[in-house]
Amino acid sequence: MPIGGAEDKRGACTILNHFVQCSGSSSAHLVVIPSASSFPQEVAQDYTRIFTALGAQQVSILHIPDRRYADHAANLGVLNEATGIFLSGGDQLRLMSLIGGTRLAEALRSRFWNGVNIAGTSAGASIMSRQMIGFGRSGDTPSQRMVQMALGLGLTDNLIIDQHFRQRRRLGRLMTAVALNPGLTGVGVDENTALEIHPDGAWQVIGAGGVTIVDSSGLEYSDIYAAKRHDPLTLRGMEVRVLLGGEQVMSLPSPSLRSA
Amino acid sequence: MPIGGAEDKRGACTILNHFVQCSGSSSAHLVVIPSASSFPQEVAQDYTRIFTALGAQQVSILHIPDRRYADHAANLGVLNEATGIFLSGGDQLRLMSLIGGTRLAEALRSRFWNGVNIAGTSAGASIMSRQMIGFGRSGDTPSQRMVQMALGLGLTDNLIIDQHFRQRRRLGRLMTAVALNPGLTGVGVDENTALEIHPDGAWQVIGAGGVTIVDSSGLEYSDIYAAKRHDPLTLRGMEVRVLLGGEQVMSLPSPSLRSA
Repeated sequence: MPIGGAEDKRGACTILNHFVQCSGSSSAHLVVIPSASSFPQEVAQDYTRIFTALGAQQVSILHIPDRRYADHAANLGVLNEATGIFLSGGDQLRLMSLIGGTRLAEALRSRFWNGVNIAGTSAGASIMSRQMIGFGRSGDTPSQRMVQMALGLGLTDNLIIDQHFRQRRRLGRLMTAVALNPGLTGVGVDENTALEIHPDGAWQVIGAGGVTIVDSSGLEYSDIYAAKRHDPLTLRGMEVRVLLGGEQVMSLPSPSLRSA
Repeated sequence: MPIGGAEDKRGACTILNHFVQCSGSSSAHLVVIPSASSFPQEVAQDYTRIFTALGAQQVSILHIPDRRYADHAANLGVLNEATGIFLSGGDQLRLMSLIGGTRLAEALRSRFWNGVNIAGTSAGASIMSRQMIGFGRSGDTPSQRMVQMALGLGLTDNLIIDQHFRQRRRLGRLMTAVALNPGLTGVGVDENTALEIHPDGAWQVIGAGGVTIVDSSGLEYSDIYAAKRHDPLTLRGMEVRVLLGGEQVMSLPSPSLRSA
């Protein structure tokens, strides 16, 4: 469940409440990983308070100070008890620099494939895909050097997830990311909005905004290999559509979470 | 079998000859994909002549003019008969823009996992990994914006393959690529040099040069998330070693071709 950042934490908490309900409700044991943030203690306290108020039975914090910690199995035991895992915002490249290639990354994938619910907001949404947007520039027109790709956690091989989408004008960078990764599907999640991806492939948008889909399944031509630096790209057959809250889509081009 | 480019095509043809021998020798049916090149006809003619002279029974050309062609199963039948597949040099991002996400990409992975020998030179070596170096700058010191990652063919999930390595001074960009993809292993192949990766995980260097390994399995710290644009990176625990021809390594950190 990628969340586009800035989810409501004071009012109805629709998205966070939904996460708690889907993770076992009053018997939920949630693990919060706040380490994408440069203020992990504050972030951990905030989510502990909110999830507890929303009725979760237990909230544990798994903060990763360094790579060695993330690679030490004894530190990861708390994940075995988790019914839901929450990845905070911050900087996705910071988090992947801490956990990429470690036992923690393996454990998160393994828990996910065993059916544990994983939600992430902002940076925590970005890192869900294997082909991850590390950072990039704002703007509506795709251009060659607009985005820097890096390795994500890899809960999905087929999607590229972006966040704060409409608020930070990220259509250009998501289209560029898809042009660099043809065949993948770009997913741009607005603030205070979440995309719930069910194991059966159904997608459901929750919250105040929308989710923009950049679908390259019909891509006919891309000149990303020829465009220089800040040149705009020529892309033919790349389709952009927007899903709003409540819409349910059963047959997106690459719904499977784990490709061949 | 990634080849670092500029392999000997006139003298002993050690590397190309080895490819023919490993692909069935006098009963080899080779398929050459020349479409990374901007001169695919010339490239196709060259390799047809060389592989025929080296004793291959049959050499077929599979040139991809556009994405639609790559996605049409009837055009790919020749791959079913192939005992070896050869990916030419050129521009890896051009080739992936043509085949990424198409049936051809699927067919190549499927043939490879069924045991068909795949060799690629220069761009054709780069595209073998899933996390592919799209392009980058020369230099020995890793810096943040030195490299642009894109989606490769994905014959291996664990390696990042670079080529023309020593000749074009690409250590900096390979280290940056690994910093952007922590946990993966960088493989820089020199010109007129090939790295043969056996199904059992053994690696063998063939040819005139060496293969540089950037091993992030012991990575302790990376500040790629904090470094700005052309700032050099801080990397602790990233190990660089060089294998020369004839050396055989059985236990590299990420030898498996298909990760979890």
